[in-house]
Amino acid sequence: MPSPGKLRILPLGGLGEIGKNMTMFEYQNEAIILDAGIMFPENDMLGIDYIIPDFQYVVNRMQEHGLRIHGIVITHGHEDHTGAIGHVLDHIKAPVYATQLTAGLLEIKMREFKHQDHPLHVIKAGDVLSLGPFSVETFHVCHSIPDSIGVGINTPVGLVVHSGDFKFDHTPVDGWPPDFAKLSEFSRRGVLALLSDSTNADQDGWTPSENVIEKAFDEVFGQVQGRIIVATFASHISRIQQVAAAAQRHGRKLAVAGHSMTEYIKVASKLGYLNLPKDLLIPLDKTNKIPPNEIAIMATGTQGEPSAVLGRLAGGQHRQLEIEKGDTVIMSAHPIPGNEESVHRTINKLIQRGANVVYDRIALVHVSGHARREELKLLINLIRPKFFIPVHGELRHLVQHSQIAQELGIPAENTAVVENGTEIFLTADTLEIGQRIPGGYVFVDGKGVGDIGPIVMRDRENLGRDGFVSVMVLLDQKTGELAEPPDIVSRGFVYLRESSWLVEMSNQVITDIVRSRPGGNLTTAIQDGLAKLYFNETKRRPMTFAYVREVQGSPVPR
Amino acid sequence: MPSPGKLRILPLGGLGEIGKNMTMFEYQNEAIILDAGIMFPENDMLGIDYIIPDFQYVVNRMQEHGLRIHGIVITHGHEDHTGAIGHVLDHIKAPVYATQLTAGLLEIKMREFKHQDHPLHVIKAGDVLSLGPFSVETFHVCHSIPDSIGVGINTPVGLVVHSGDFKFDHTPVDGWPPDFAKLSEFSRRGVLALLSDSTNADQDGWTPSENVIEKAFDEVFGQVQGRIIVATFASHISRIQQVAAAAQRHGRKLAVAGHSMTEYIKVASKLGYLNLPKDLLIPLDKTNKIPPNEIAIMATGTQGEPSAVLGRLAGGQHRQLEIEKGDTVIMSAHPIPGNEESVHRTINKLIQRGANVVYDRIALVHVSGHARREELKLLINLIRPKFFIPVHGELRHLVQHSQIAQELGIPAENTAVVENGTEIFLTADTLEIGQRIPGGYVFVDGKGVGDIGPIVMRDRENLGRDGFVSVMVLLDQKTGELAEPPDIVSRGFVYLRESSWLVEMSNQVITDIVRSRPGGNLTTAIQDGLAKLYFNETKRRPMTFAYVREVQGSPVPR
Repeated sequence: MPSPGKLRILPLGGLGEIGKNMTMFEYQNEAIILDAGIMFPENDMLGIDYIIPDFQYVVNRMQEHGLRIHGIVITHGHEDHTGAIGHVLDHIKAPVYATQLTAGLLEIKMREFKHQDHPLHVIKAGDVLSLGPFSVETFHVCHSIPDSIGVGINTPVGLVVHSGDFKFDHTPVDGWPPDFAKLSEFSRRGVLALLSDSTNADQDGWTPSENVIEKAFDEVFGQVQGRIIVATFASHISRIQQVAAAAQRHGRKLAVAGHSMTEYIKVASKLGYLNLPKDLLIPLDKTNKIPPNEIAIMATGTQGEPSAVLGRLAGGQHRQLEIEKGDTVIMSAHPIPGNEESVHRTINKLIQRGANVVYDRIALVHVSGHARREELKLLINLIRPKFFIPVHGELRHLVQHSQIAQELGIPAENTAVVENGTEIFLTADTLEIGQRIPGGYVFVDGKGVGDIGPIVMRDRENLGRDGFVSVMVLLDQKTGELAEPPDIVSRGFVYLRESSWLVEMSNQVITDIVRSRPGGNLTTAIQDGLAKLYFNETKRRPMTFAYVREVQGSPVPR
Repeated sequence: MPSPGKLRILPLGGLGEIGKNMTMFEYQNEAIILDAGIMFPENDMLGIDYIIPDFQYVVNRMQEHGLRIHGIVITHGHEDHTGAIGHVLDHIKAPVYATQLTAGLLEIKMREFKHQDHPLHVIKAGDVLSLGPFSVETFHVCHSIPDSIGVGINTPVGLVVHSGDFKFDHTPVDGWPPDFAKLSEFSRRGVLALLSDSTNADQDGWTPSENVIEKAFDEVFGQVQGRIIVATFASHISRIQQVAAAAQRHGRKLAVAGHSMTEYIKVASKLGYLNLPKDLLIPLDKTNKIPPNEIAIMATGTQGEPSAVLGRLAGGQHRQLEIEKGDTVIMSAHPIPGNEESVHRTINKLIQRGANVVYDRIALVHVSGHARREELKLLINLIRPKFFIPVHGELRHLVQHSQIAQELGIPAENTAVVENGTEIFLTADTLEIGQRIPGGYVFVDGKGVGDIGPIVMRDRENLGRDGFVSVMVLLDQKTGELAEPPDIVSRGFVYLRESSWLVEMSNQVITDIVRSRPGGNLTTAIQDGLAKLYFNETKRRPMTFAYVREVQGSPVPR
């Protein structure tokens, strides 16, 4: 398994965003891990709370081949880079390194998993970490959460740079531009390989600076007379800062709705990443005491989640707030792919309740935190790597990003588009794509981690589509006839109370089968007979189950 | 119910696209219907095949108040305007009017519902239909299917113009530009109200002409050496014509994959809307006999449907075709909102299998069939209506469209943004928003029309998320103890075979309940006890069901 003289790069996870959530860099059984994040379930992954990368291979290598993990470096505080930390630390006991804000957010997650005593080292962008055979040089990048970093990993085969999630923002809200000097320095020293964020690799031009939002906010805040509700991601600290500033400029007080956003604001304020004047903030339940044109409210729920603040407002189910005619809702976020439908539904319902809704198609109230094509070109040309590995994005984005690199003169054979779970080997002269290691998604559902496999998922899909019918059939041991009428239970198929004809037909099918098969196996015969009946009559395929027993005398319900 | 002297406009359907699928225009109990289309289920409408507008109110008015429907006019051949015709004719026996291509497509649907003998009148754009008190002037519009029309309805209160689905394409593929002359003539005569397509009302500028696709196709066809597979909507006749032309220009034969597309091509060719040279077409199973650079294949499945051609190719499950390295797939369509996730998944899987995939973000291989903001302004200013009613779109689009009208000088009180099911009353001088009539979505699932209500849908959601557990508990009538171990069946919850600990705990809970409650009702106690156990142990909420009976002797499984 160890590959002498080669650097092994292993992105973990299933098909989806590749190299996003967790990546291992290994040299001769000595390794570091970059990020420990979760994936969000797709619409057809029914009942799944979230997904963690499958790091069983790493654990096996530790136990069976003495692989050593010298550190886990987290690039920034978003869930898709931090959310699996508790699960990872359950099995991999390596020290964690993160910048201050990221560490503050990691602490909360580590506490949930009882890892509060696990070593968590707070670093500053620019720090150099010595982790086994690697010297990791961190550098500041701009993204939609403060204190984000990329890393330059000095390995025995050469310098490997990983961009982290980034965009080139010359006028970021916190006044801290990307560390161009460090990138140029890397370039001077010679970069073996660049791993770079491909999220927006199919979008032309540059992502606008965060500061364009200010103008859009000023326009809305300047025109509107009613309350203003601004929804964004709970973790979007700089956006929250912008809303606070707009509120202050326009003489409005600010209230915060939503548990997760309140938590983020608390941590970010404590650590100095958010500056909210004391007299600006008011509790949510005080907003009904001041005129609408003096109120701004920050809320969660931009992805159409029915249980988040905006979702509850749209459904009229929030305990403290109610949408009123004249309210303006600003959706300061873009739907994550897959969420469009529920986001649009939320917008429509808010309009239905009388709100004016401003979303990113109508005004520039959101910009992405990821670099577009011109920025991606800039990074490649700043770094001038020998090898190029696009990461962070679906396959379609990686392919685009790889083509960009080729347009800039990197030969196709020096780029590697791989899926999660596929090893890449680097030497000072070669890039080689290795095997696919077993593994993929690990579903987390409630307390269960990885106990839901394809069989349960397929059953959920079938049950969700057509429901089920279950029947208990008790036969008289003497006569072989039904000892009581079949007891049919069904959910998700048809509304049985209004379908007595179907119940009667079911009883008939059961009676016929019982009579026609004295002594035979009845359970599967009844299940199959009912399935056939239901498909013929309804063109639906509910799952069917039967309990069949011979008993003596008359059964008594309890 | 009749409103003397007023025109009643009633859009039917639930919240979603408003005024899209079916609209009634009524004057003193004499009415016409415009379009009879279906809606597509949203991602969380589990198991639903499609949705039809709820026209029960119309049927009731016919039966109880003598409402007469003088005709059903269909504007164009898309499913969301034609797909419910069978259901409508089951209950409303009015003659149907449509242009030739639309009629050809309607015939297929009418035959499915055994309405092949129902009067279906083929009209030409420009024809005037006399339907009860209405004189309906049809006019040609451009859209993503040929032979589309809008209507000018001369009513006793004034001229009401409905745009249908449209865009202003000066260079359409069939060379038939929109009927500007008719629109100007309407304007000269004076238009009481305009109902206009709002689908793209939140998009700036003009929708590009269909002819820009030609350039993009030429670029791909000119560069690519392997097979080219172009996916589009089965009904997108003009796009199919463009693919055929590109294939011919670049020396490729054309094969068609997909039942629905083959059907559309057959009808459109027969009626003269599609011109495919005989020697251009080859059967799909002959494509492996000629070199890859001489093949183009048209296919369905642009919305990520797993069972359509592209979905089967992505999954490696097509019987005649297999994606090979070097294939180029052109996605000549845009994801319908809600389908993004499955479309992207399809693209990624095609790439995984070695295909190069070109989609609309990468090259201009698709344009919308609906007018954007500048075109919407043009229509309003061509028509100069007194009243403006935005239709075809979600509430958020309608609101935008209404604001456009106001920017052009139509007073806010002369516009009406309503939801489906809300009546609008017009006189020569007034616009008035009426009541919301009861009704909404009617779900079609298999053979069932409208038999799936909120209870079944909620059960499907619960079953899909957490599955169910069912148990049969047989007690000995003499001892009151379990006559056999509880028989537990579960699906979609946990994989029981690997969760014997949970089965044992379930048995213990049941035994405890049986012992603690001699003589009491056990069924709900066991259901509740198990539900509690499962939530505590797994944080999941499977539905729980119990059959409990006292029996004599030992039950014998059958």
